[in-house]
Amino acid sequence: MEKIAVIGAGSWGTALAIVLADNGHHVNLYGRRNDQIQEINDKHTNEKYLPGITLPHNIFGLSSLRHAVEDVSTIVLVTPTKAMRQVLSDLKQLLTKKVTIVHASKGIEPETHKRISEMIEEEIPSEYLNAVVVLSGPSHAEEVSRRMPTTVTVSSNNANAQELIQDLFINSNFRVYTNADVIGVELGGALKNIIALGAGLADGLGHGDNAKAALITRGLAEIARLGTKMGANPLTFAGLTGIGDLIVTCTSVHSRNWRAGNMLGKGKKLNDVLEDMGMAVEGVRTTKAAYQLAKNVGVEMPITEQIYEVLFNDKDPKTALDELMARGKTKELEDFSEKLFL
Amino acid sequence: MEKIAVIGAGSWGTALAIVLADNGHHVNLYGRRNDQIQEINDKHTNEKYLPGITLPHNIFGLSSLRHAVEDVSTIVLVTPTKAMRQVLSDLKQLLTKKVTIVHASKGIEPETHKRISEMIEEEIPSEYLNAVVVLSGPSHAEEVSRRMPTTVTVSSNNANAQELIQDLFINSNFRVYTNADVIGVELGGALKNIIALGAGLADGLGHGDNAKAALITRGLAEIARLGTKMGANPLTFAGLTGIGDLIVTCTSVHSRNWRAGNMLGKGKKLNDVLEDMGMAVEGVRTTKAAYQLAKNVGVEMPITEQIYEVLFNDKDPKTALDELMARGKTKELEDFSEKLFL
Repeated sequence: MEKIAVIGAGSWGTALAIVLADNGHHVNLYGRRNDQIQEINDKHTNEKYLPGITLPHNIFGLSSLRHAVEDVSTIVLVTPTKAMRQVLSDLKQLLTKKVTIVHASKGIEPETHKRISEMIEEEIPSEYLNAVVVLSGPSHAEEVSRRMPTTVTVSSNNANAQELIQDLFINSNFRVYTNADVIGVELGGALKNIIALGAGLADGLGHGDNAKAALITRGLAEIARLGTKMGANPLTFAGLTGIGDLIVTCTSVHSRNWRAGNMLGKGKKLNDVLEDMGMAVEGVRTTKAAYQLAKNVGVEMPITEQIYEVLFNDKDPKTALDELMARGKTKELEDFSEKLFL
Repeated sequence: MEKIAVIGAGSWGTALAIVLADNGHHVNLYGRRNDQIQEINDKHTNEKYLPGITLPHNIFGLSSLRHAVEDVSTIVLVTPTKAMRQVLSDLKQLLTKKVTIVHASKGIEPETHKRISEMIEEEIPSEYLNAVVVLSGPSHAEEVSRRMPTTVTVSSNNANAQELIQDLFINSNFRVYTNADVIGVELGGALKNIIALGAGLADGLGHGDNAKAALITRGLAEIARLGTKMGANPLTFAGLTGIGDLIVTCTSVHSRNWRAGNMLGKGKKLNDVLEDMGMAVEGVRTTKAAYQLAKNVGVEMPITEQIYEVLFNDKDPKTALDELMARGKTKELEDFSEKLFL
């Protein structure tokens, strides 16, 4: 039994807290809102984020970050990318000994184009940081909280920490694999949200499964192109955190990014969509970051470009998708697969 | 304008006839059943297979194979794999000049383990065979018949024929790419039906999107393992006819193989399922062929093995899927991705 802090009491943070609690650990679940923390402790529910789920009694809600991380050697960060720097800067003030930081967030920072593990390493002084581990994969929180079979991958430059974190989380419903390619695991998880916005757009416009399958296939190609350019192992994109996560995010109505894209496709404006969602839609910021990054490093990302134009330059979604479809006759391998692993 | 014969008036044959007719060609659509051919000619519908669709008037129904292939230089075969040898043997008697045979069927022959292009080359004497071209990709017939955006790939050892067939089919809704890897294109199209049966099983058993995404991801890995062993270009499995077709077949309720798997997962017996469907479920025969082939060439296909046991040895679907999930802690890249392209 270990004492573990989970930072972020949204649906994914709470679902991961349930996995850890099922494995017998003492879980401090940190959230900023007092009423939510009270609900977690009094009723053992988190209705807004995981409706209908009863939380194990070894999950303890805390609205004080200081108390949440006291005496823990593992901290699981499940914070929107937007809030990551602030949370890390708060954490830095509170740490008194070395910790392993696991993160399960999916995004890239606009302007700096940093992955989340890079942000963690920048903000937390090395004397307080044992290792950084990323946890990613095809995993809707709702299903995890219902103990439905799920597979994820953990990844770290520290092989020892990677195995320890695998042991903390693994159980018969929640299968945890390892993959030492941190860059590939983080980029796959972040970039798939862009394609999910695109899949939602296509569905919102009334396109069918044929068009969506083509979009996902070509989406994987551009994710892999950018990822390998940034130093990832191309094979990672064929795995759980690549194609697996991409499929689940693009084809499930549970997916926030798909839902946001869907509303855009039906003609809603971005600000209204974000207001309606009331939760972070990571793909929006990630589109901006990936668009800038692709330009900087000279990688072609036609889908990301069109989504960027729809989100930030008010381009008509139908025109954007039509332009993606209406490319001339092409040799598929030249146009697509050979570029996939270059 | 060309005169083209389409052999097989099921949903996919009729949808491809519509594409060719939209491009201005004279299309002879051959089917065995007189009442269906009469319906096609009198009412310009094919209600059983494409409900609600009006066929262009340049599609001509024919129940005589001889008349259907008279004076054509291109024959499009859209026949269930099971009937393929018989159709080819009938065709052989009727050909009087060289033709290009395009096939859009997806299967492997049990016992011989032949791909469809191999069967065509065996049955049709070379003096009557200009080239064999395969057409494959993520393409539900219903959506193609409604002119919804669709992408497919054509593939041939004859580059010239490949381009001519691309030109025959391509239009603004139906994008046609080329890929010279015939083996990869045919095996991707055939083997994905096994994984679709598995995805249907998982859904029928009440598993969620997380489990299905894992199954599809690992399914792609075993398809690629067998395919590359048989001489395919591994990159083909990352393209439209690989992951693209796999996604559409595993996540859409249009898919027959998914539907058959779904019924099996809900406890129906195979014979009842096949009777209920009333259409060919290619995945069943393909599972047998792939299972035998994998054993012969020494390739591990854990999903195919479990589906085989469910289909042919009456194994309980829940036990089969539990065994797939319940594997020990594994390094993902060792277990999965590195094997993907070996």
